[in-house]
Amino acid sequence: MAEKLILLDEWLSMFGMRARIALAEKGIDQYEFREEDLDNKSQLLLKMNPIHKKIPVLIHNGKPISESLIIVEYIDEVWMDKAPVLPSDPYQKAQARFWADFVNKKVGDVGGRIWAGKREEIEVAKKEFIEALKELEKVLGDKPYFGGDTFGFVDIALIPFDSWFYSYEALGNFKVEAECPKLIAWAKRCKQRESVAKSVAHEKEVYDFVLQYRKGHQLD
Amino acid sequence: MAEKLILLDEWLSMFGMRARIALAEKGIDQYEFREEDLDNKSQLLLKMNPIHKKIPVLIHNGKPISESLIIVEYIDEVWMDKAPVLPSDPYQKAQARFWADFVNKKVGDVGGRIWAGKREEIEVAKKEFIEALKELEKVLGDKPYFGGDTFGFVDIALIPFDSWFYSYEALGNFKVEAECPKLIAWAKRCKQRESVAKSVAHEKEVYDFVLQYRKGHQLD
Repeated sequence: MAEKLILLDEWLSMFGMRARIALAEKGIDQYEFREEDLDNKSQLLLKMNPIHKKIPVLIHNGKPISESLIIVEYIDEVWMDKAPVLPSDPYQKAQARFWADFVNKKVGDVGGRIWAGKREEIEVAKKEFIEALKELEKVLGDKPYFGGDTFGFVDIALIPFDSWFYSYEALGNFKVEAECPKLIAWAKRCKQRESVAKSVAHEKEVYDFVLQYRKGHQLD
Repeated sequence: MAEKLILLDEWLSMFGMRARIALAEKGIDQYEFREEDLDNKSQLLLKMNPIHKKIPVLIHNGKPISESLIIVEYIDEVWMDKAPVLPSDPYQKAQARFWADFVNKKVGDVGGRIWAGKREEIEVAKKEFIEALKELEKVLGDKPYFGGDTFGFVDIALIPFDSWFYSYEALGNFKVEAECPKLIAWAKRCKQRESVAKSVAHEKEVYDFVLQYRKGHQLD
């Protein structure tokens, strides 16, 4: 059977970017990218992810997979002959899952409290955000990638947030590079990969969206 | 090397119970169970899980693994010759991960808002809790276990909450069985397994703890 792949996504979504990067790492570019309007979700999205009604959803031969890290693991397992995303060693795998989960819990949420937060909330969120990035920088250490010499699961989990750093910085009046220079060097390294470069949004596009959102929600 | 296993745990924790059940499913009973006092965490816990400072932590030959579902996957991968917890098919595996994650997001959190919630919050939380259980009951359908004929990942993720049902019911003045009879039949089935029976707390012990907690925090 010819593979049929549809990705329900939204270009600026860091979670969608994870799925795109994983597909690109596996050399899969023959898939249908469907941009969702999250203010007016498609019937297909509501049908394919009735529980959370969120993007990304990967539909593989008619069967939906939801939740970005689960999608990335799925892609890794189905196309296992190329560019392994997760290490094969169970302990290294558990560590990769732990830090990807940390990104979800400590970077994703707090990032949202910066870009979609009220002015007075931004300062608190910014501190937590920098703390979380500093933890990640410690884990990265002097390695090229989180898992060592090869680009992998934690890199895929975190690098999409780099497209949003500019917005966090502009709103929070800080520079990630001043706080976490190694992390920024890592991000530059990741963005030299074609899989990443072609899958992530431009920081200015993200910022335009953020400004519009904040205006629409009277946050400034 | 002889395997050395230590589980940092707390007997009433549904997250700890998951690790215990997974170990028992694999026939591993030679491990050191260390009960943590969560009001006075051990140096070992703080050292082994400096990020979240939470139980359970499985320490395998000196190396710590944290976050209950990650621990269960780790156990499944290391002792893969016996009682597979996750299905081998990538799609089934993604589904199992999705529903275990659903339990974390929709049952764990809302359960906490019942047992540790203010009286006025309980009614709202209870409705969300029942809705989540109904979704799970739909997924279970007429199968003996969530994954089909064999006990697996979603069963391990959810069954520990059964020890807490009595407390939720007493505080919320409802009966899970009246709302979700198939789920209760499933829970009974699970508890007939030795791995579950010996790993879960008794509902009355949980309720005693809850009452004490509520008294100590002046919630009633």
